[in-house]
Amino acid sequence: MFEARFQTFDDATERHASAGRLAALRAALKQQDLAGFMVPRADRHQGEYVPASEARLAWLTGFTGSAGSAIVLSDRAAIFVDGRYLLQVRDQVDTSLFAVEHLIENPPDKWLEANLPRGARLGYDPWLHTADDAERLAKACTSAGATLVPVEPNPIDAIWSDRPAPPLGKVTVRAPELAGEAAADKLARVQAEIAKLKADALIVSDAHNVAWTFNIRGSDVEHTPLPLSFARVPREGRASIFIDARKLSNETRDYLETLGDVREPAAFADELKALGAAKATVRVDSATGADAISRLISAAGGNVARGADPITLMKAVKNAAEIAGTRAAHLRDGAAVANFLAWFDREAPKGGMTEIDAVAALETFRRETGLLKEVSFPTISGAGPNGAIVHYRVTRATNRKIGRDELFLLDSGAQYEDGTTDITRTIAVGTPSAEMRDRFTRVLKGHIAIARAVFPEGTTGAQLDSFARQYLWNAGVDFDHGTGHGVGSYLSVHEGPASISKRGTTVALKRGMILSNEPGYYKTDSFGIRIENLVLVIEAQVEGAEKPVHAFETLTLAPIDRRVIAPELMTADEIAWLNAYHARVAKELMPLVAADTRAWLEAATKPLRG
Amino acid sequence: MFEARFQTFDDATERHASAGRLAALRAALKQQDLAGFMVPRADRHQGEYVPASEARLAWLTGFTGSAGSAIVLSDRAAIFVDGRYLLQVRDQVDTSLFAVEHLIENPPDKWLEANLPRGARLGYDPWLHTADDAERLAKACTSAGATLVPVEPNPIDAIWSDRPAPPLGKVTVRAPELAGEAAADKLARVQAEIAKLKADALIVSDAHNVAWTFNIRGSDVEHTPLPLSFARVPREGRASIFIDARKLSNETRDYLETLGDVREPAAFADELKALGAAKATVRVDSATGADAISRLISAAGGNVARGADPITLMKAVKNAAEIAGTRAAHLRDGAAVANFLAWFDREAPKGGMTEIDAVAALETFRRETGLLKEVSFPTISGAGPNGAIVHYRVTRATNRKIGRDELFLLDSGAQYEDGTTDITRTIAVGTPSAEMRDRFTRVLKGHIAIARAVFPEGTTGAQLDSFARQYLWNAGVDFDHGTGHGVGSYLSVHEGPASISKRGTTVALKRGMILSNEPGYYKTDSFGIRIENLVLVIEAQVEGAEKPVHAFETLTLAPIDRRVIAPELMTADEIAWLNAYHARVAKELMPLVAADTRAWLEAATKPLRG
Repeated sequence: MFEARFQTFDDATERHASAGRLAALRAALKQQDLAGFMVPRADRHQGEYVPASEARLAWLTGFTGSAGSAIVLSDRAAIFVDGRYLLQVRDQVDTSLFAVEHLIENPPDKWLEANLPRGARLGYDPWLHTADDAERLAKACTSAGATLVPVEPNPIDAIWSDRPAPPLGKVTVRAPELAGEAAADKLARVQAEIAKLKADALIVSDAHNVAWTFNIRGSDVEHTPLPLSFARVPREGRASIFIDARKLSNETRDYLETLGDVREPAAFADELKALGAAKATVRVDSATGADAISRLISAAGGNVARGADPITLMKAVKNAAEIAGTRAAHLRDGAAVANFLAWFDREAPKGGMTEIDAVAALETFRRETGLLKEVSFPTISGAGPNGAIVHYRVTRATNRKIGRDELFLLDSGAQYEDGTTDITRTIAVGTPSAEMRDRFTRVLKGHIAIARAVFPEGTTGAQLDSFARQYLWNAGVDFDHGTGHGVGSYLSVHEGPASISKRGTTVALKRGMILSNEPGYYKTDSFGIRIENLVLVIEAQVEGAEKPVHAFETLTLAPIDRRVIAPELMTADEIAWLNAYHARVAKELMPLVAADTRAWLEAATKPLRG
Repeated sequence: MFEARFQTFDDATERHASAGRLAALRAALKQQDLAGFMVPRADRHQGEYVPASEARLAWLTGFTGSAGSAIVLSDRAAIFVDGRYLLQVRDQVDTSLFAVEHLIENPPDKWLEANLPRGARLGYDPWLHTADDAERLAKACTSAGATLVPVEPNPIDAIWSDRPAPPLGKVTVRAPELAGEAAADKLARVQAEIAKLKADALIVSDAHNVAWTFNIRGSDVEHTPLPLSFARVPREGRASIFIDARKLSNETRDYLETLGDVREPAAFADELKALGAAKATVRVDSATGADAISRLISAAGGNVARGADPITLMKAVKNAAEIAGTRAAHLRDGAAVANFLAWFDREAPKGGMTEIDAVAALETFRRETGLLKEVSFPTISGAGPNGAIVHYRVTRATNRKIGRDELFLLDSGAQYEDGTTDITRTIAVGTPSAEMRDRFTRVLKGHIAIARAVFPEGTTGAQLDSFARQYLWNAGVDFDHGTGHGVGSYLSVHEGPASISKRGTTVALKRGMILSNEPGYYKTDSFGIRIENLVLVIEAQVEGAEKPVHAFETLTLAPIDRRVIAPELMTADEIAWLNAYHARVAKELMPLVAADTRAWLEAATKPLRG
């Protein structure tokens, strides 16, 4: 009946092939007189999802996590992962071949200082590292008396016999009523920003930024409707977009040619050299700009100005059409989630339902909207103790039955053409314990504190983050992730530059930004709680305000499980917020949900008494 | 009857002499082939208070504010001050001689880029600028095609005919029961930190840090019991302290010689050269280390490692004796403040009392304790609209009568040998308006939110700052200063490295730190509100805590004016906090206050009903 089409539950590790591949790489390195080579989990755009053709780290080591890096030397190799992947890496990787290192505690540069022989030449692919990253590695090599050497083409590619072809997802033009601003107008605004930066041109290396600017979408990677491409935007005159022509229909090509020159990716390097030869000052994004970009421009005589790509901030501030789209998407998604929750409440108590069953059911309810394009990330479906693993991804090996008197944490999202969603609900099956109710209520109070926050223009997300934590702090507990991340408009579900986090960026929150509000609490080996809605930064209506003030409007519409709340811990204001939210959820979703969801929805959104 | 001995109310500007002095300086510069010279408001230690012998900026320009800088070129000159001094500078300085520039909006480096002629040599005294500052200035000179040149001795000193002698305040040894840790033990801890930093030696340029390490106090500057001195602490072996021998009694000299070599300040440069010649790696404080220190070490072949002086953090964490001392000081100070407040409530409504009268009375009540050494900063005494000037300093020219139905803001502190205090109270005379009560209550709610905060180990003050602002934000208002600063132990009332502020440092709050908790609200031309207590970081007692958690203990003891509170805006928890605080104030101060204060104290600390 239910089926997940947009995510798999297999451990796709190729660990068995690792020894042979490692030996082949070492032989190839030796031929080039290299003592070692860096293998990051990265493509040329530093994207969150890399296409199969760029999954060199997984091919070499078997590790399929979303962040990590390996270093191969002639006599040793190491793989670096962060805390959330320390268990997974040991399952997937042959640790007799790769020593496992903690990415934060013993990062590659530190490891290189300790392990690189004097006089060694360490290779790296300058297209897969940012310039900042390459500088850090070069410094570590220098400390070890060694040298960092750019190597092109990537030596792995020559030995990767069954390498998948690069993705050729069809590019579509975003409908004007969804984009809300013509690409030509966006380009003019980008050019004004380039002028402000006193640059002659901007290289757009973040493929999301190219997609936003040119109002195009694609399907080159999982979960994000992204066409992989670069762009060059001069301060004045025509832009260029570098994209494989096979992704473009004639109509799409014609559309793009009204905006700039459409070129093959192979022409990108020459264009960078030309900018350099013209002695141009070129802005290169420090977050995503490959070291190769900076090197090509500099070597040809240009001046590279590294810094934030101004498009990242422009893209984060949604226009009226994008906001209307996200509201429609959240209404549709909320009805699908409500249908799922009603089904879950009917079926889960019978026993036997698994984490994978829940993922498949939720995706199916979303598909029934007829408008689901993709899930916006692999659903996190954690029953009982699995809920305490913050970045848990269920596989057939870990798949757990959803037991009685346990909490079930479900973090999921959808890609609809009008908007991207991301919602977490924590649901009780049977009777939650007093501890679960206490912690759930503290998380909810933090969630409400963010939802109700009012703050002056110029305030950063870092300044709001503690509001989400304060009630947990009072109990001597906390959660070890940020409170919120930016969300795109039918684009990445994790979007910069703003966030709500302890040591967030200095980027102020601006009206039109969409962020998640997702405090949590995780008790290892026991249970996990997270309550996540998306919020929109709006103008606050405050009489007598001396300065512009902002507030959040909650976009996500789905009941929060009343059965896990301890009302005695809540203030009257908090209960009023929850009841008003639930009244809105009921009012907006009731006309949209399935017939057999209505009674459930009414019960699930009943006012709570303090 | 009342007298202020520790602060003056005169505008001590020497504006009239400015033209002649400027001409003399220009002539001196010309002789040295210098196109200009930098005149910062700084001594060799970058101290908050500079001795009269170092007040070159005031001598040259007439400006007596606590922060600023001048640049003198042959045909023009400018003075740079921040927003709080823009009015004062125009009163004190002849603006036909010095253009007034905003220190933040058009800082010296930007001004130099625009005004320095190509090929010019700009002089600076390397003892009065940090190395970071000198680097910034050198970069600006380079942009302008000019050169920054270190000049010694300072050319002003040769033409400053009536220059005061350097201060020779007697140095005293801090009583062991107040210091709580022997200087030898502190030095051993400092040496362990130097080893951790992999340095061979530390140059202690912050005179507060020398005073803390060696357990000495002095009186070389106003308001802080500071002996001006430098120290050199090697990773192993004997330290040196560089201090004018005339400040030392035989006993004090004998004491210091048990800890290290006692040398004249004139020997300091040679010691730096010796460190350089020994190829030592020397830690130099980036916040206070003069550029000259780095230059002398580097020029002699040493390796300067700029960064935080580890003593700054060590000093901020108070030991048990210092904490006991501060508690005693706050008890004593609280009684004096209560005596003042009772007197004020009797006298102010009669009319005629001025801001200066209040300052003199408060100081007198503190002097009556018999233990007052100094006020810890010039009292901010602002009636009505003057209260809205955040850094207001009353002079005979600005002195205002404290009127009816106005708010009176009084921010003051004392130096006792056992501790330093800092307290702000905002008092109503007559009937405060509804707006005053609303704003006062929001400030109080923020103050209480900080006072009651519970937070895990590792939390920074920046993460707490918004707790103080949230109720003001809800009304669309804010305050434009930090929420709290560190406070020393019979040392500076403004002490790093921790703070509670929007974009504070990344230094985590540690148990034993003393900070101020001082949210406010300022309505220009109308009224100002600030409620300030000092707080101590302590262990929070939380059952079931999963990690070490901290809380604040409020140290300051004095009633908060109940007449300005709007109880209907407060929660039951907030009222409970206030009532418990007032009960404690009454209980602890009642035995100590004057007979005619007792009835007032009882009334002022009565429980508030919600």
